[in-house]
Amino acid sequence: MTLIDGNKIAADIIAELTAEVAQIQGRKPCLALVRVGDDPASVSYVTKKEKTSEQIGITGKVILPPVTISQNELFALIDQLNADPAVDGILVQSPMPKQIDEVAVFRRIAPQKDVDGLGTMNLGKVAQDDETGFVSCTPAGIMELLARSGVDLKGKHVVVVGRSLLVGKPVALLALQKKAGANGTVTVCHSQTANLPEITRQADVLIAAIGRAEFVKADMVKQGAVVIDVGINRVADASKRSGYRLVGDVQFSGVAPKCSQITPVPGGVGPMTVAMLMKNTVKAYRLAQSH
Amino acid sequence: MTLIDGNKIAADIIAELTAEVAQIQGRKPCLALVRVGDDPASVSYVTKKEKTSEQIGITGKVILPPVTISQNELFALIDQLNADPAVDGILVQSPMPKQIDEVAVFRRIAPQKDVDGLGTMNLGKVAQDDETGFVSCTPAGIMELLARSGVDLKGKHVVVVGRSLLVGKPVALLALQKKAGANGTVTVCHSQTANLPEITRQADVLIAAIGRAEFVKADMVKQGAVVIDVGINRVADASKRSGYRLVGDVQFSGVAPKCSQITPVPGGVGPMTVAMLMKNTVKAYRLAQSH
Repeated sequence: MTLIDGNKIAADIIAELTAEVAQIQGRKPCLALVRVGDDPASVSYVTKKEKTSEQIGITGKVILPPVTISQNELFALIDQLNADPAVDGILVQSPMPKQIDEVAVFRRIAPQKDVDGLGTMNLGKVAQDDETGFVSCTPAGIMELLARSGVDLKGKHVVVVGRSLLVGKPVALLALQKKAGANGTVTVCHSQTANLPEITRQADVLIAAIGRAEFVKADMVKQGAVVIDVGINRVADASKRSGYRLVGDVQFSGVAPKCSQITPVPGGVGPMTVAMLMKNTVKAYRLAQSH
Repeated sequence: MTLIDGNKIAADIIAELTAEVAQIQGRKPCLALVRVGDDPASVSYVTKKEKTSEQIGITGKVILPPVTISQNELFALIDQLNADPAVDGILVQSPMPKQIDEVAVFRRIAPQKDVDGLGTMNLGKVAQDDETGFVSCTPAGIMELLARSGVDLKGKHVVVVGRSLLVGKPVALLALQKKAGANGTVTVCHSQTANLPEITRQADVLIAAIGRAEFVKADMVKQGAVVIDVGINRVADASKRSGYRLVGDVQFSGVAPKCSQITPVPGGVGPMTVAMLMKNTVKAYRLAQSH
């Protein structure tokens, strides 16, 4: 069993981007990070994204509207950023306060600046195998982990557990694409699936993205499978100072011995998300420069 | 075994739409049908769409640019139709001449007039379970056939053979949606799939959309399955005056006895496509009126 080291792979990508951005003369790529409210996870994510931007040489521009901002005021802010030629990428951190329609916000971001890839147009481009768009960061990170771990999906059975818009559906579409590394046979399972273990046991590559702690057990996995664990769940743990520990959607100690390759949690898919955001931002900059 | 009668179901939908359009005071819905060139199948499809429009009371406006039209000239024509408040829906018939980028043409159509549902924005809305968009006509027709035949996909294993943008991928996304009638477990197979019969035999609902005559044989189908045959293939037949007959992607005589329900070819999915185009056009009209 080989561990897929997301920290190492993400660091490689960040190093590649740092070298690339260092070559850029004049204005550097710029990423606008909009955070509405003080959700602790959001604060930590946005800080991480800002720091990684700076490390690479990307200008990270953090914008903190009040938590009471209306949908229309947020639209106006996005419109301003859409029109600003000094901004290449725009990310509005989820979750947003309850008065905001997140899907509408994602759709408001100009497709060519939607580096988080959650807008309708960029989702459609994933379905169209159109590489001018932006793939959302977690599914893009999963595909990059697989590619850099030598896993070619061609003709393999890829089983995705979870049908979310952020992970399950786009990663299924990516695995299905007619391009090198993809061409998988893809099954998407979810809470309504009958005989789930029977299906997951067919997976050559199993992608767990359900958000339920240690849901995937050893008897649900085929010997020799590649397992990608997208979950990040807190479970109570009195032995930790914080009172909890992080576990994935996969029961790691039981499943890992059966796998040819597996991602750990933390240190698997997680670090890739920020790296792919940075990659998308540099791509957005290149696209803007070429027009 | 019950035959799913696409002609009957399409006629029902057309009758419903005719009654609905008859209630409309003032300007009736209008569908612009753009056909570039004289491909015989296109001529026949566009004529059928125009006639069905008129039957329902929808204004069918056929536009026939020269086959030599450039991409930019076609864009200009689409922009005109996009801006015309008297036009509710726009369809540019595929295939287009080789100087035209079809995906770019579909994307140029204003999303709120893209009644063929092939534009990037409307594809993205299918992934988002967003019902304000337009679902492309063949996948929409398949879902309607299933619904009106009492087939609820919830928890069922739906196997789609074929990953095209016109059928395979959108119907997979529809079957996966969190809405009544959907909620299926979905597998998409294609030319690169290993052990295809092993996978198709798991299907409670099998959707064949590969474009290969009589590809799905009896030993690939589970007893009691529902089979939807999207293929329309010409095979040589000296006994016919035309010299050919139409067959589906399913070897009907062998497969049908194993099925609980199956669509014939012709007379299954085919007639639904035009009916769903009409339904989308009336929806586009309603959306335009409500703004």
